[in-house]
Amino acid sequence: MSAFPQFLIDGYHHFAANRYETEQTRYRKLAEAGQKPSTLLIGCCDSRAAPETIFDVGPGELFVIRNVANLVPPYEPDAQYHSTSSALEFGVRALEVQHIVVMGHGRCGGIGAALDSNPQPLSPGDFIGNWMRLLKPSAESIAGNELMTPAERQTALERISIRFSLRNLLTFPFIEEAVSAGRLTLHGAWFDIALGELWIMNDETGDFIRPVPDVTPE
Amino acid sequence: MSAFPQFLIDGYHHFAANRYETEQTRYRKLAEAGQKPSTLLIGCCDSRAAPETIFDVGPGELFVIRNVANLVPPYEPDAQYHSTSSALEFGVRALEVQHIVVMGHGRCGGIGAALDSNPQPLSPGDFIGNWMRLLKPSAESIAGNELMTPAERQTALERISIRFSLRNLLTFPFIEEAVSAGRLTLHGAWFDIALGELWIMNDETGDFIRPVPDVTPE
Amino acid sequence: MSAFPQFLIDGYHHFAANRYETEQTRYRKLAEAGQKPSTLLIGCCDSRAAPETIFDVGPGELFVIRNVANLVPPYEPDAQYHSTSSALEFGVRALEVQHIVVMGHGRCGGIGAALDSNPQPLSPGDFIGNWMRLLKPSAESIAGNELMTPAERQTALERISIRFSLRNLLTFPFIEEAVSAGRLTLHGAWFDIALGELWIMNDETGDFIRPVPDVTPE
Amino acid sequence: MSAFPQFLIDGYHHFAANRYETEQTRYRKLAEAGQKPSTLLIGCCDSRAAPETIFDVGPGELFVIRNVANLVPPYEPDAQYHSTSSALEFGVRALEVQHIVVMGHGRCGGIGAALDSNPQPLSPGDFIGNWMRLLKPSAESIAGNELMTPAERQTALERISIRFSLRNLLTFPFIEEAVSAGRLTLHGAWFDIALGELWIMNDETGDFIRPVPDVTPE
Repeated sequence: MSAFPQFLIDGYHHFAANRYETEQTRYRKLAEAGQKPSTLLIGCCDSRAAPETIFDVGPGELFVIRNVANLVPPYEPDAQYHSTSSALEFGVRALEVQHIVVMGHGRCGGIGAALDSNPQPLSPGDFIGNWMRLLKPSAESIAGNELMTPAERQTALERISIRFSLRNLLTFPFIEEAVSAGRLTLHGAWFDIALGELWIMNDETGDFIRPVPDVTPE
Repeated sequence: MSAFPQFLIDGYHHFAANRYETEQTRYRKLAEAGQKPSTLLIGCCDSRAAPETIFDVGPGELFVIRNVANLVPPYEPDAQYHSTSSALEFGVRALEVQHIVVMGHGRCGGIGAALDSNPQPLSPGDFIGNWMRLLKPSAESIAGNELMTPAERQTALERISIRFSLRNLLTFPFIEEAVSAGRLTLHGAWFDIALGELWIMNDETGDFIRPVPDVTPE
Repeated sequence: MSAFPQFLIDGYHHFAANRYETEQTRYRKLAEAGQKPSTLLIGCCDSRAAPETIFDVGPGELFVIRNVANLVPPYEPDAQYHSTSSALEFGVRALEVQHIVVMGHGRCGGIGAALDSNPQPLSPGDFIGNWMRLLKPSAESIAGNELMTPAERQTALERISIRFSLRNLLTFPFIEEAVSAGRLTLHGAWFDIALGELWIMNDETGDFIRPVPDVTPE
Repeated sequence: MSAFPQFLIDGYHHFAANRYETEQTRYRKLAEAGQKPSTLLIGCCDSRAAPETIFDVGPGELFVIRNVANLVPPYEPDAQYHSTSSALEFGVRALEVQHIVVMGHGRCGGIGAALDSNPQPLSPGDFIGNWMRLLKPSAESIAGNELMTPAERQTALERISIRFSLRNLLTFPFIEEAVSAGRLTLHGAWFDIALGELWIMNDETGDFIRPVPDVTPE
């Protein structure tokens, strides 16, 4: 039998002896009552951008979709297997979340691939090529812009992709309806891995700004 | 402007002042050098089953796909948008992970939907219905067994679905090739939310057992 | 004379010098007053699942029936020799026990025989084949499920058999009557030999859970 | 939900923390390798005569049948459900035990019922009456003997019943054959509850004698 990664087993034992030990009542209640998270988050698979770590949330708080480059495809009700769309449907219709957050991050490999002027398929099926094709119109306008530095192009497309996904969210009738009814709000966020900074999208202007902590004077 | 969820902002400030503060060197190195995780994990969107929490891992360690019921569809190189398949391709071909873990969990809502004898579409597109159709043959054989309790049927299908996804992983030529060459191993795991227990699949028998720490063999 | 097994003689001398020595008053009182156990237990003959060991009970506490796979046949008042039924009658009507526990266990050879797709009689009389025929309908529904591992099928049938025996108990009028009158309650339990774990059946759902010591509710 | 007997849960936790804790390697090996007991014991259901306690044996050592009055019915290969015969078949043919011990005990309620000159059925099915009918010829010769005291009649029938069961064992072809071939030996034992004494049957004379411990001089 091939060995299960030891760092995961060690990590689990640490979790069991510490976090689960202190939160077991919460876990049991969540198991019995079912989850009822207020927020659905669409994040990237990137190992440096775990939402639960960055937002320091506990069990039951965030329903999380993770795919490459945190993309939302447009609404396509064609009876195919749609990983992201089915999770959106479950979160909005079954769990009735009140918020959807699309979270991008810096140094995103998927965004980098979309900006590559001469991309090589990673395998004959070229799944990443097809997936990032979702961003093709946006990527082309940025990739060809010789007046921006590579880092600027990367960050620009990362943020464009968040706005792109937010726009696609509204193509889903059940999302559009919930947003119109005031039961659901949509948000964008971007995490800077190097600096550990969170940037939040202003949903009127589309700009990303850093939230300022409420400093409570002592 | 609709307000970004306050608990996420508070959680982020806690992260920034604590975890990031102590790990900032690691974050910076990961930003500069890029991620190089050893392991790709396919988990469920469920808010009670965050892999980073359960395995207590830090930044850079786990490349994470999360969809409903942690399913891997079969290989379909048809130039459509494939969220899960593209992430698998990126993890295996670009990041060259050495391990893939499929992690299911107890009380999974997607699995519950697959066992529902009279499912109602959550929306006209019935995305969840179509997504869980992946498991239909397995679900039917379990759903019809009146001698098992509902909870037993649920657990049985949760574990079957993990073996199903592991089998589908091998339909991807780039995964099968890497496994055959000994560069990649596949693993199953199941997390019991109520008890906080991790069960690991024995890849020879397919059975799930709990890892036992510190057993001294005679 | 063929020698009585020496390990039993040695074990007896150890019992006599230790346990009996400290509990002789209790043994004498039990001899004089007669037994008055609160609980009747139906267990398996398996050498790894002795009820007195697992429950650490002393003399006078458990009235114990042990047959292969801890089965209760249905009520058949036909004047034949009925080993299990007569013991049930004695326990419930003469001793007036307040509890009946059906205890199954992992790795049960009888259950394994019931799942065998091509069973060979152990002797021309095929006693085991006939005995396990009690479980035939349940066994067939599980044995044919190729999506479960052999160990999962085994555990599933072990637990089904406990519910089956509990249901058969209620076909005995003197048991049904005592249960209806609130003088008797029925319980299921399952012992995991490898892990030394006891699982108790929730009599409303039929599910098996481990008793958790000392959980402080909030 | 009706409560599982608390003394059993407490006893189990004591077992888990003590005996299982020190013997877990043995339990695991027995789980993996399967049981291979050298001895099958037929004992009584009586709560004061647990074989594992009296012989101080550990897991894996004794395959145990327990019915009322430790009786072996005669060989009846009629495709009915035979609890005791099927367990004998499993022990001798599948486990290939080398010893069978029939163990009776003092103050046996079943034997007392067999000696009752005016027995009342415990329930309309009269299961105990039918079961003890196995001993009827022997019981009548003793019950009518006014020259013996009640206690002497009781002890006499307890011992007669052991020889009766040993004789019935030899009516099973697979037992007779194994005994003739020297692969299996049959033994009788009787336990005095009040005094904690074990009496072993001399298989040539049929007499019961107490074993004398090998006293090792220091």
